[in-house]
Amino acid sequence: MSELRRDPIVGRWVIVSSERGGRPTDFEPATPRPPDAFCPFCAGNEDKTPPEIRAIRDPASQPDTGGWKIRVVSNKFPALNIEGELNKRARGIYDIMSGIGAHEVFIETPEHDRTISTLPPDHVRDLMWMYRERLRDLEKDRRLKFILIFRNSGQSAGASLRHPHSQLIATPTIPKRILEELDGVRRYIDFKDRCVFCDMVDEEHTFKQRVVCENEHFISFTPFAARFPFEMWILPKEHQPCFKSIKDDQLEPLAAVLQETIKRLDKSLDFPPYNYVIHTSPVNSEINYNYHWHFEIIPRLTHVAGFEWGTGFYINPTPPERAAEFLREVEL
Amino acid sequence: MSELRRDPIVGRWVIVSSERGGRPTDFEPATPRPPDAFCPFCAGNEDKTPPEIRAIRDPASQPDTGGWKIRVVSNKFPALNIEGELNKRARGIYDIMSGIGAHEVFIETPEHDRTISTLPPDHVRDLMWMYRERLRDLEKDRRLKFILIFRNSGQSAGASLRHPHSQLIATPTIPKRILEELDGVRRYIDFKDRCVFCDMVDEEHTFKQRVVCENEHFISFTPFAARFPFEMWILPKEHQPCFKSIKDDQLEPLAAVLQETIKRLDKSLDFPPYNYVIHTSPVNSEINYNYHWHFEIIPRLTHVAGFEWGTGFYINPTPPERAAEFLREVEL
Repeated sequence: MSELRRDPIVGRWVIVSSERGGRPTDFEPATPRPPDAFCPFCAGNEDKTPPEIRAIRDPASQPDTGGWKIRVVSNKFPALNIEGELNKRARGIYDIMSGIGAHEVFIETPEHDRTISTLPPDHVRDLMWMYRERLRDLEKDRRLKFILIFRNSGQSAGASLRHPHSQLIATPTIPKRILEELDGVRRYIDFKDRCVFCDMVDEEHTFKQRVVCENEHFISFTPFAARFPFEMWILPKEHQPCFKSIKDDQLEPLAAVLQETIKRLDKSLDFPPYNYVIHTSPVNSEINYNYHWHFEIIPRLTHVAGFEWGTGFYINPTPPERAAEFLREVEL
Repeated sequence: MSELRRDPIVGRWVIVSSERGGRPTDFEPATPRPPDAFCPFCAGNEDKTPPEIRAIRDPASQPDTGGWKIRVVSNKFPALNIEGELNKRARGIYDIMSGIGAHEVFIETPEHDRTISTLPPDHVRDLMWMYRERLRDLEKDRRLKFILIFRNSGQSAGASLRHPHSQLIATPTIPKRILEELDGVRRYIDFKDRCVFCDMVDEEHTFKQRVVCENEHFISFTPFAARFPFEMWILPKEHQPCFKSIKDDQLEPLAAVLQETIKRLDKSLDFPPYNYVIHTSPVNSEINYNYHWHFEIIPRLTHVAGFEWGTGFYINPTPPERAAEFLREVEL
């Protein structure tokens, strides 16, 4: 069982998860997985994963067998566990919490060699639908305070398997990064009486310089203060606090903008490793109507080194305006 | 000339430095530098670096020639520039600042194949002395607000050259991470009327579980809420806000604890890539007597992935108590 520990200075929580290993020898450089290695996410291997939590599948088929399009299963090596009681206590001068939460995997397709860029558009829409379903279901668990959906693509972005998948981790406390955004949003409203994300959408849509692509409902752009080369954000154009509130007729336009964004990235940089995360309003706390959900897409092109770790300052060698230009110019 | 841009939501600053490249082709995987490649930091190549700012050298020798022990030079590709005026202005709804600051390199020894673990103890003491000297000199520049000294060791920790070196970046604004620590320190004092770092020193020294090594003046331990496997902090046992205030007779004990800490890391994990940073009180602002300077040493053993980027939460597979045990047990 893992535990959560709080840094007494800045209040950051850390999941200390001893089941995942930890001896010095565990950190010897990993040899890349051979391309023909056994893949538990492929069609036909449904019994090699933990049981299905949810799936889009042929109505005539049985759970944990073939005939599916998207499957959601528990992570085999979960960082947090759904079973148990949420205890909060002191250890000496420090604070701990039991490692309660959820850790799920979205197996995005039965096909091993697909990617977000090459899936049919309706398949990406179904993935967005499944994200929304899992958020709606998990928020019923009153112990959970925040749910992060994220995707690690490529070994150096932290993916241990190549088969297309994304993940979800639900935590029993609101993460620091989210508290900072909520706080920033509140301070902006106090000062300007407007949503900072809505202001960004308006500025980017008007000046076009940093726009990667857009449609009626969504906009994708390289943020003005991008931390990383080719970092991109996707926002709903209309103010919307939670991803779970996305309407049925917005799923297709969202999938379209997400897919075009990743396609442009893949074409510009030859399928680079990347992470994406969905930032949405916390669950089981007062609904934060001021928040504005969004995707952050982070290509992993540069090393984060001492200066970044030491300060939280980033050095970005590619001005976002130039990155957006490269991304727009690529032929799809 | 680089520029500083502010994220309008969380207030994080980013250095956008277009001179350092940025085309998609710049991000093709780097081939490791061959071991016999030309090294500008080696003895005999003093004219291949920018001119010496400061050095410990034979009094009979000339600057930028042989006969030195430690040299400090400007970074050839600086993230920030010392020349120019500090302008702050708006760009649309966003905020920018000119890229004023300092970016220096400490060439730690003329010998290419040394490391912190294998340098003579008095050499490491001289390096600590030089760190203090540069802090004391640079804080006279009223435009600067914070000075970070850091070390990237190993390619995946961001070091582009193997020759032992550390760096310094001085910024015209106090970085977010430091503001968070100052804020945390203040809140702890409001609540407990004690310094949180002093409390940690006391707790760790008393219970020993997480101590790596210590002497009369300094303690090295794996922090309770370590973000990374084998993360270690070094703190002065007595409350001391600024690294620049370190006394002459503390330089040797500091060097001893730092060197033993890195030696234990190098022995346990076979010279892993790592970063270290020195967190010290900001300069040219009201002196923050509540702050407590320290080293943070971050071995680069695991990938930071979507969950960490998305939340600021970390997953650490090695309990700090276990890491400390491994580190203590290794034979030096």
